[in-house]
Amino acid sequence: MHSDDPLAELVALLGRLPGIGERTATRLAYFVLSEDAAYAHALSGSLAALHERVRRCASCGNFTSSDRCRICTDARRDGAILCVVARVPDLVAIERAGNYRGRYHVLHALLAPLDGMSADRIDIAALAQRIRDEDVREVVLATPLSVEGEATALYVAQSLRSLPVRISRIASGIPHGGELEFADQVTLGRAFEGRKDL
Amino acid sequence: MHSDDPLAELVALLGRLPGIGERTATRLAYFVLSEDAAYAHALSGSLAALHERVRRCASCGNFTSSDRCRICTDARRDGAILCVVARVPDLVAIERAGNYRGRYHVLHALLAPLDGMSADRIDIAALAQRIRDEDVREVVLATPLSVEGEATALYVAQSLRSLPVRISRIASGIPHGGELEFADQVTLGRAFEGRKDL
Repeated sequence: MHSDDPLAELVALLGRLPGIGERTATRLAYFVLSEDAAYAHALSGSLAALHERVRRCASCGNFTSSDRCRICTDARRDGAILCVVARVPDLVAIERAGNYRGRYHVLHALLAPLDGMSADRIDIAALAQRIRDEDVREVVLATPLSVEGEATALYVAQSLRSLPVRISRIASGIPHGGELEFADQVTLGRAFEGRKDL
Repeated sequence: MHSDDPLAELVALLGRLPGIGERTATRLAYFVLSEDAAYAHALSGSLAALHERVRRCASCGNFTSSDRCRICTDARRDGAILCVVARVPDLVAIERAGNYRGRYHVLHALLAPLDGMSADRIDIAALAQRIRDEDVREVVLATPLSVEGEATALYVAQSLRSLPVRISRIASGIPHGGELEFADQVTLGRAFEGRKDL
Protein backbone atom coordinates (compact mmCIF):
# COMPACT_ATOMS: atom_id res chain seq x y z
CA MET A 1 0.00 0.00 0.00
CA HIS A 2 1.09 3.53 -0.75
CA SER A 3 0.51 4.59 2.85
CA ASP A 4 2.20 7.91 2.08
CA ASP A 5 -0.70 8.73 -0.27
CA PRO A 6 -4.01 7.98 1.47
CA LEU A 7 -6.10 8.82 -1.60
CA ALA A 8 -4.06 6.57 -3.90
CA GLU A 9 -4.32 3.81 -1.30
CA LEU A 10 -8.14 4.07 -1.19
CA VAL A 11 -8.34 4.23 -5.00
CA ALA A 12 -6.22 1.05 -5.25
CA LEU A 13 -8.45 -0.77 -2.74
CA LEU A 14 -11.71 0.37 -4.38
CA GLY A 15 -10.26 -0.61 -7.77
CA ARG A 16 -10.22 -4.25 -6.63
CA LEU A 17 -14.03 -4.28 -6.51
CA PRO A 18 -15.65 -5.98 -9.52
CA GLY A 19 -16.56 -3.60 -12.35
CA ILE A 20 -14.76 -0.67 -10.67
CA GLY A 21 -11.86 0.59 -12.79
CA GLU A 22 -9.28 3.13 -11.70
CA ARG A 23 -11.35 6.02 -13.03
CA THR A 24 -14.51 5.02 -11.16
CA ALA A 25 -12.47 4.22 -8.03
CA THR A 26 -11.02 7.74 -8.17
CA ARG A 27 -14.49 9.25 -8.55
CA LEU A 28 -15.77 7.23 -5.58
CA ALA A 29 -12.79 8.21 -3.40
CA TYR A 30 -13.34 11.90 -4.17
CA PHE A 31 -17.01 11.48 -3.36
CA VAL A 32 -16.19 9.98 0.04
CA LEU A 33 -13.77 12.86 0.67
CA SER A 34 -16.35 15.48 -0.29
CA GLU A 35 -18.98 13.94 1.98
CA ASP A 36 -19.06 14.40 5.72
CA ALA A 37 -16.48 12.26 7.58
CA ALA A 38 -19.44 10.49 9.25
CA TYR A 39 -20.20 8.68 5.99
CA ALA A 40 -16.62 7.41 5.61
CA HIS A 41 -16.72 6.21 9.20
CA ALA A 42 -20.08 4.47 8.80
CA LEU A 43 -18.84 2.67 5.67
CA SER A 44 -15.57 1.82 7.41
CA GLY A 45 -17.39 0.40 10.43
CA SER A 46 -19.76 -1.63 8.28
CA LEU A 47 -16.86 -3.15 6.34
CA ALA A 48 -14.82 -3.88 9.47
CA ALA A 49 -17.68 -5.79 11.07
CA LEU A 50 -18.90 -7.58 7.94
CA HIS A 51 -16.95 -10.82 8.17
CA GLU A 52 -17.55 -11.08 11.90
CA ARG A 53 -21.29 -10.48 11.70
CA VAL A 54 -22.19 -12.34 8.53
CA ARG A 55 -21.66 -16.12 8.41
CA ARG A 56 -22.82 -19.03 6.32
CA CYS A 57 -26.11 -20.70 7.18
CA ALA A 58 -25.32 -24.02 8.88
CA SER A 59 -27.88 -25.77 6.63
CA CYS A 60 -27.64 -24.26 3.17
CA GLY A 61 -24.59 -21.92 3.06
CA ASN A 62 -26.64 -18.76 2.44
CA PHE A 63 -25.31 -15.64 4.22
CA THR A 64 -26.97 -14.96 7.55
CA SER A 65 -26.34 -13.17 10.82
CA SER A 66 -27.95 -16.06 12.75
CA ASP A 67 -27.11 -19.76 12.83
CA ARG A 68 -29.60 -20.68 10.11
CA CYS A 69 -30.88 -18.36 7.38
CA ARG A 70 -34.37 -16.95 6.90
CA ILE A 71 -35.19 -19.40 4.13
CA CYS A 72 -34.09 -22.49 6.07
CA THR A 73 -36.08 -21.41 9.14
CA ASP A 74 -39.19 -20.49 7.11
CA ALA A 75 -41.64 -23.37 7.66
CA ARG A 76 -43.67 -22.33 4.59
CA ARG A 77 -40.83 -23.23 2.22
CA ASP A 78 -41.06 -26.64 0.52
CA GLY A 79 -38.29 -28.80 2.01
CA ALA A 80 -38.76 -31.54 -0.59
CA ILE A 81 -37.10 -29.49 -3.34
CA LEU A 82 -33.54 -28.20 -3.16
CA CYS A 83 -32.08 -25.67 -5.58
CA VAL A 84 -28.28 -25.94 -5.90
CA VAL A 85 -26.57 -22.63 -6.74
CA ALA A 86 -22.92 -21.68 -7.05
CA ARG A 87 -23.04 -18.38 -5.18
CA VAL A 88 -25.35 -16.44 -2.86
CA PRO A 89 -26.09 -13.68 -5.45
CA ASP A 90 -27.62 -16.41 -7.66
CA LEU A 91 -29.91 -17.38 -4.76
CA VAL A 92 -30.83 -13.71 -4.33
CA ALA A 93 -31.68 -13.43 -8.05
CA ILE A 94 -33.94 -16.52 -7.87
CA GLU A 95 -35.64 -15.13 -4.74
CA ARG A 96 -36.17 -11.81 -6.54
CA ALA A 97 -37.90 -13.65 -9.41
CA GLY A 98 -40.25 -14.96 -6.73
CA ASN A 99 -41.61 -18.21 -8.23
CA TYR A 100 -39.43 -20.74 -6.42
CA ARG A 101 -40.78 -21.94 -3.07
CA GLY A 102 -38.26 -24.66 -2.18
CA ARG A 103 -35.00 -24.39 -0.25
CA TYR A 104 -31.41 -23.85 -1.44
CA HIS A 105 -27.95 -25.32 -1.24
CA VAL A 106 -25.06 -22.96 -1.95
CA LEU A 107 -21.86 -24.63 -3.20
CA HIS A 108 -19.66 -21.49 -2.82
CA ALA A 109 -17.55 -22.95 -5.61
CA LEU A 110 -17.57 -24.05 -9.22
CA LEU A 111 -15.50 -26.65 -11.03
CA ALA A 112 -13.06 -24.89 -13.36
CA PRO A 113 -12.06 -27.61 -15.85
CA LEU A 114 -9.89 -25.17 -17.80
CA ASP A 115 -7.98 -24.03 -14.71
CA GLY A 116 -7.64 -27.56 -13.38
CA MET A 117 -9.74 -26.85 -10.31
CA SER A 118 -10.18 -30.12 -8.46
CA ALA A 119 -13.58 -31.41 -7.42
CA ASP A 120 -12.67 -31.50 -3.72
CA ARG A 121 -13.79 -27.90 -3.34
CA ILE A 122 -17.36 -29.03 -3.83
CA ASP A 123 -18.71 -30.64 -0.67
CA ILE A 124 -20.85 -33.43 -2.12
CA ALA A 125 -20.99 -35.26 1.22
CA ALA A 126 -22.77 -32.33 2.91
CA LEU A 127 -25.29 -32.10 0.06
CA ALA A 128 -25.93 -35.87 0.07
CA GLN A 129 -26.38 -35.81 3.84
CA ARG A 130 -28.95 -33.04 3.55
CA ILE A 131 -30.86 -34.91 0.85
CA ARG A 132 -31.07 -37.95 3.14
CA ASP A 133 -31.79 -36.05 6.39
CA GLU A 134 -34.38 -33.69 4.96
CA ASP A 135 -36.05 -36.26 2.72
CA VAL A 136 -35.46 -34.18 -0.42
CA ARG A 137 -37.29 -35.44 -3.55
CA GLU A 138 -35.83 -33.18 -6.22
CA VAL A 139 -32.53 -31.36 -6.68
CA VAL A 140 -32.66 -28.53 -9.25
CA LEU A 141 -29.17 -27.68 -10.47
CA ALA A 142 -29.11 -23.90 -11.00
CA THR A 143 -25.38 -23.35 -11.50
CA PRO A 144 -24.56 -20.92 -14.33
CA LEU A 145 -24.92 -21.95 -17.97
CA SER A 146 -21.16 -21.39 -18.43
CA VAL A 147 -18.45 -24.01 -18.97
CA GLU A 148 -17.77 -24.05 -15.22
CA GLY A 149 -21.45 -24.09 -14.30
CA GLU A 150 -22.21 -26.94 -16.70
CA ALA A 151 -19.22 -28.96 -15.50
CA THR A 152 -20.29 -28.45 -11.91
CA ALA A 153 -23.91 -29.44 -12.64
CA LEU A 154 -22.71 -32.61 -14.40
CA TYR A 155 -20.35 -33.46 -11.53
CA VAL A 156 -23.03 -32.94 -8.86
CA ALA A 157 -25.59 -34.94 -10.88
CA GLN A 158 -23.17 -37.86 -11.30
CA SER A 159 -22.14 -37.77 -7.63
CA LEU A 160 -25.77 -37.95 -6.46
CA ARG A 161 -26.80 -40.67 -8.92
CA SER A 162 -27.00 -43.39 -6.25
CA LEU A 163 -29.54 -41.44 -4.18
CA PRO A 164 -33.31 -41.87 -4.71
CA VAL A 165 -33.80 -38.25 -5.79
CA ARG A 166 -34.89 -36.58 -9.03
CA ILE A 167 -32.09 -34.41 -10.42
CA SER A 168 -32.99 -31.63 -12.88
CA ARG A 169 -31.17 -28.78 -14.60
CA ILE A 170 -32.66 -25.32 -15.24
CA ALA A 171 -33.61 -24.69 -18.89
CA SER A 172 -31.31 -22.98 -21.37
CA GLY A 173 -32.69 -21.00 -24.32
CA ILE A 174 -33.51 -17.57 -25.70
CA PRO A 175 -34.12 -15.17 -22.76
CA HIS A 176 -37.49 -13.43 -22.34
CA GLY A 177 -37.82 -10.61 -24.87
CA GLY A 178 -34.71 -11.87 -26.69
CA GLU A 179 -34.29 -11.52 -30.44
CA LEU A 180 -33.27 -14.65 -32.35
CA GLU A 181 -31.15 -12.41 -34.57
CA PHE A 182 -28.81 -11.59 -31.68
CA ALA A 183 -28.77 -15.00 -29.98
CA ASP A 184 -25.46 -16.89 -30.13
CA GLN A 185 -25.09 -20.30 -31.78
CA VAL A 186 -25.01 -22.30 -28.54
CA THR A 187 -28.12 -20.60 -27.14
CA LEU A 188 -30.02 -21.16 -30.39
CA GLY A 189 -28.92 -24.80 -30.42
CA ARG A 190 -30.14 -25.24 -26.86
CA ALA A 191 -33.42 -23.48 -27.63
CA PHE A 192 -34.10 -26.05 -30.35
CA GLU A 193 -32.95 -29.02 -28.26
CA GLY A 194 -35.17 -27.94 -25.37
CA ARG A 195 -38.24 -27.21 -27.52
CA LYS A 196 -41.64 -28.14 -26.07
CA ASP A 197 -44.79 -29.37 -27.77
CA LEU A 198 -47.61 -26.85 -27.94
CA MET B 1 -29.13 1.77 9.76
CA HIS B 2 -30.52 -1.79 9.78
CA SER B 3 -27.90 -2.92 12.29
CA ASP B 4 -29.76 -6.25 12.58
CA ASP B 5 -28.84 -7.00 8.96
CA PRO B 6 -25.12 -6.26 8.37
CA LEU B 7 -25.32 -7.01 4.64
CA ALA B 8 -28.32 -4.73 4.08
CA GLU B 9 -26.51 -2.02 6.06
CA LEU B 10 -23.41 -2.26 3.85
CA VAL B 11 -25.55 -2.33 0.68
CA ALA B 12 -27.36 0.84 1.83
CA LEU B 13 -24.05 2.61 2.53
CA LEU B 14 -22.45 1.54 -0.77
CA GLY B 15 -25.64 2.59 -2.57
CA ARG B 16 -24.97 6.21 -1.56
CA LEU B 17 -21.84 6.26 -3.75
CA PRO B 18 -22.34 8.04 -7.09
CA GLY B 19 -23.34 5.73 -9.95
CA ILE B 20 -23.79 2.75 -7.59
CA GLY B 21 -27.39 1.52 -7.59
CA GLU B 22 -28.82 -1.06 -5.21
CA ARG B 23 -28.00 -3.90 -7.57
CA THR B 24 -24.34 -2.92 -7.97
CA ALA B 25 -24.06 -2.22 -4.24
CA THR B 26 -25.34 -5.73 -3.55
CA ARG B 27 -22.81 -7.21 -5.98
CA LEU B 28 -19.98 -5.25 -4.33
CA ALA B 29 -21.06 -6.31 -0.82
CA TYR B 30 -21.11 -9.97 -1.86
CA PHE B 31 -17.68 -9.55 -3.42
CA VAL B 32 -16.29 -8.15 -0.16
CA LEU B 33 -17.86 -11.07 1.72
CA SER B 34 -16.42 -13.64 -0.67
CA GLU B 35 -12.93 -12.12 -0.41
CA ASP B 36 -10.61 -12.68 2.52
CA ALA B 37 -11.53 -10.61 5.61
CA ALA B 38 -8.15 -8.86 5.20
CA TYR B 39 -9.49 -6.95 2.19
CA ALA B 40 -12.57 -5.70 4.08
CA HIS B 41 -10.31 -4.60 6.93
CA ALA B 42 -7.86 -2.81 4.62
CA LEU B 43 -10.72 -0.96 2.91
CA SER B 44 -12.28 -0.18 6.29
CA GLY B 45 -8.99 1.21 7.64
CA SER B 46 -8.38 3.30 4.56
CA LEU B 47 -11.85 4.83 4.78
CA ALA B 48 -11.59 5.47 8.51
CA ALA B 49 -8.32 7.38 8.13
CA LEU B 50 -9.23 9.25 4.93
CA HIS B 51 -10.62 12.47 6.36
CA GLU B 52 -7.89 12.65 8.99
CA ARG B 53 -5.03 12.07 6.55
CA VAL B 54 -6.22 14.05 3.54
CA ARG B 55 -6.70 17.80 3.85
CA ARG B 56 -7.01 20.80 1.57
CA CYS B 57 -3.84 22.49 0.33
CA ALA B 58 -3.43 25.77 2.25
CA SER B 59 -2.74 27.60 -1.03
CA CYS B 60 -5.01 26.17 -3.70
CA GLY B 61 -7.52 23.82 -2.03
CA ASN B 62 -6.29 20.68 -3.83
CA PHE B 63 -6.30 17.51 -1.72
CA THR B 64 -2.97 16.74 -0.08
CA SER B 65 -1.51 14.87 2.87
CA SER B 66 0.94 17.74 3.53
CA ASP B 67 0.33 21.42 4.23
CA ARG B 68 0.70 22.44 0.57
CA CYS B 69 0.05 20.21 -2.45
CA ARG B 70 2.56 18.87 -4.97
CA ILE B 71 1.55 21.40 -7.61
CA CYS B 72 1.88 24.42 -5.32
CA THR B 73 5.31 23.29 -4.09
CA ASP B 74 6.56 22.46 -7.61
CA ALA B 75 8.86 25.37 -8.56
CA ARG B 76 8.65 24.44 -12.25
CA ARG B 77 4.95 25.36 -12.40
CA ASP B 78 4.11 28.80 -13.78
CA GLY B 79 2.82 30.91 -10.89
CA ALA B 80 1.66 33.73 -13.17
CA ILE B 81 -1.33 31.74 -14.41
CA LEU B 82 -4.07 30.38 -12.18
CA CYS B 83 -6.73 27.90 -13.31
CA VAL B 84 -9.93 28.12 -11.28
CA VAL B 85 -11.82 24.81 -11.01
CA ALA B 86 -14.94 23.83 -9.10
CA ARG B 87 -13.75 20.47 -7.77
CA VAL B 88 -10.52 18.49 -7.37
CA PRO B 89 -11.50 15.83 -9.96
CA ASP B 90 -11.60 18.63 -12.55
CA LEU B 91 -8.03 19.56 -11.60
CA VAL B 92 -7.05 15.88 -11.91
CA ALA B 93 -8.61 15.73 -15.40
CA ILE B 94 -6.68 18.82 -16.53
CA GLU B 95 -3.45 17.37 -15.09
CA ARG B 96 -4.14 14.12 -16.94
CA ALA B 97 -4.45 16.05 -20.23
CA GLY B 98 -0.96 17.32 -19.48
CA ASN B 99 -0.76 20.65 -21.37
CA TYR B 100 -1.41 23.09 -18.55
CA ARG B 101 1.72 24.22 -16.64
CA GLY B 102 0.26 26.88 -14.33
CA ARG B 103 -1.19 26.50 -10.84
CA TYR B 104 -4.78 25.95 -9.65
CA HIS B 105 -7.40 27.36 -7.37
CA VAL B 106 -10.17 24.98 -6.27
CA LEU B 107 -13.45 26.65 -5.30
CA HIS B 108 -14.99 23.48 -3.77
CA ALA B 109 -18.35 25.03 -4.66
CA LEU B 110 -20.51 26.22 -7.55
CA LEU B 111 -23.23 28.84 -7.66
CA ALA B 112 -26.57 27.13 -8.12
CA PRO B 113 -28.85 29.88 -9.42
CA LEU B 114 -31.80 27.49 -9.76
CA ASP B 115 -31.48 26.24 -6.16
CA GLY B 116 -30.94 29.72 -4.77
CA MET B 117 -27.40 28.96 -3.62
CA SER B 118 -25.92 32.16 -2.29
CA ALA B 119 -22.57 33.47 -3.48
CA ASP B 120 -21.07 33.45 0.02
CA ARG B 121 -20.00 29.85 -0.46
CA ILE B 122 -17.41 31.05 -2.97
CA ASP B 123 -14.41 32.57 -1.19
CA ILE B 124 -13.56 35.44 -3.55
CA ALA B 125 -11.42 37.18 -0.90
CA ALA B 126 -9.01 34.23 -0.71
CA LEU B 127 -8.71 34.09 -4.51
CA ALA B 128 -8.16 37.88 -4.78
CA GLN B 129 -5.54 37.71 -2.02
CA ARG B 130 -3.68 34.98 -3.90
CA ILE B 131 -3.77 36.94 -7.15
CA ARG B 132 -2.18 39.92 -5.37
CA ASP B 133 0.31 37.94 -3.25
CA GLU B 134 1.52 35.66 -6.04
CA ASP B 135 1.51 38.32 -8.75
CA VAL B 136 -0.87 36.33 -10.96
CA ARG B 137 -1.27 37.69 -14.52
CA GLU B 138 -4.06 35.47 -15.83
CA VAL B 139 -6.98 33.63 -14.29
CA VAL B 140 -8.44 30.86 -16.50
CA LEU B 141 -11.98 30.02 -15.41
CA ALA B 142 -12.36 26.25 -15.90
CA THR B 143 -15.63 25.65 -14.07
CA PRO B 144 -18.02 23.30 -15.90
CA LEU B 145 -19.91 24.46 -18.99
CA SER B 146 -23.19 23.84 -17.13
CA VAL B 147 -25.66 26.46 -15.86
CA GLU B 148 -23.95 26.38 -12.44
CA GLY B 149 -20.45 26.45 -13.93
CA GLU B 150 -21.27 29.37 -16.23
CA ALA B 151 -22.93 31.34 -13.42
CA THR B 152 -19.91 30.71 -11.20
CA ALA B 153 -17.45 31.78 -13.92
CA LEU B 154 -19.43 34.98 -14.51
CA TYR B 155 -19.62 35.72 -10.78
CA VAL B 156 -15.85 35.15 -10.27
CA ALA B 157 -15.00 37.25 -13.35
CA GLN B 158 -17.18 40.16 -12.14
CA SER B 159 -15.81 39.94 -8.60
CA LEU B 160 -12.20 40.13 -9.84
CA ARG B 161 -12.84 42.93 -12.34
CA SER B 162 -11.06 45.58 -10.24
CA LEU B 163 -7.80 43.58 -10.18
CA PRO B 164 -5.09 44.06 -12.86
CA VAL B 165 -5.39 40.50 -14.13
CA ARG B 166 -6.47 38.95 -17.43
CA ILE B 167 -9.56 36.77 -16.91
CA SER B 168 -10.33 34.07 -19.49
CA ARG B 169 -12.84 31.26 -19.85
CA ILE B 170 -12.06 27.83 -21.37
CA ALA B 171 -13.48 27.32 -24.88
CA SER B 172 -16.82 25.65 -25.52
CA GLY B 173 -17.52 23.77 -28.77
CA ILE B 174 -17.71 20.38 -30.44
CA PRO B 175 -15.49 17.90 -28.56
CA HIS B 176 -12.56 16.20 -30.31
CA GLY B 177 -13.84 13.44 -32.57
CA GLY B 178 -17.40 14.71 -32.13
CA GLU B 179 -19.98 14.47 -34.89
CA LEU B 180 -21.92 17.65 -35.70
CA GLU B 181 -24.95 15.46 -36.30
CA PHE B 182 -25.10 14.52 -32.61
CA ALA B 183 -24.10 17.88 -31.11
CA ASP B 184 -26.81 19.72 -29.19
CA GLN B 185 -28.08 23.17 -30.18
CA VAL B 186 -26.18 25.08 -27.48
CA THR B 187 -22.86 23.39 -28.28
CA LEU B 188 -23.30 24.05 -32.00
CA GLY B 189 -24.16 27.69 -31.28
CA ARG B 190 -21.04 28.04 -29.14
CA ALA B 191 -18.89 26.34 -31.76
CA PHE B 192 -19.98 29.00 -34.27
CA GLU B 193 -19.62 31.91 -31.83
CA GLY B 194 -16.10 30.74 -30.88
CA ARG B 195 -14.95 30.13 -34.46
CA LYS B 196 -11.37 31.06 -35.32
CA ASP B 197 -9.86 32.39 -38.54
CA LEU B 198 -7.72 29.92 -40.46
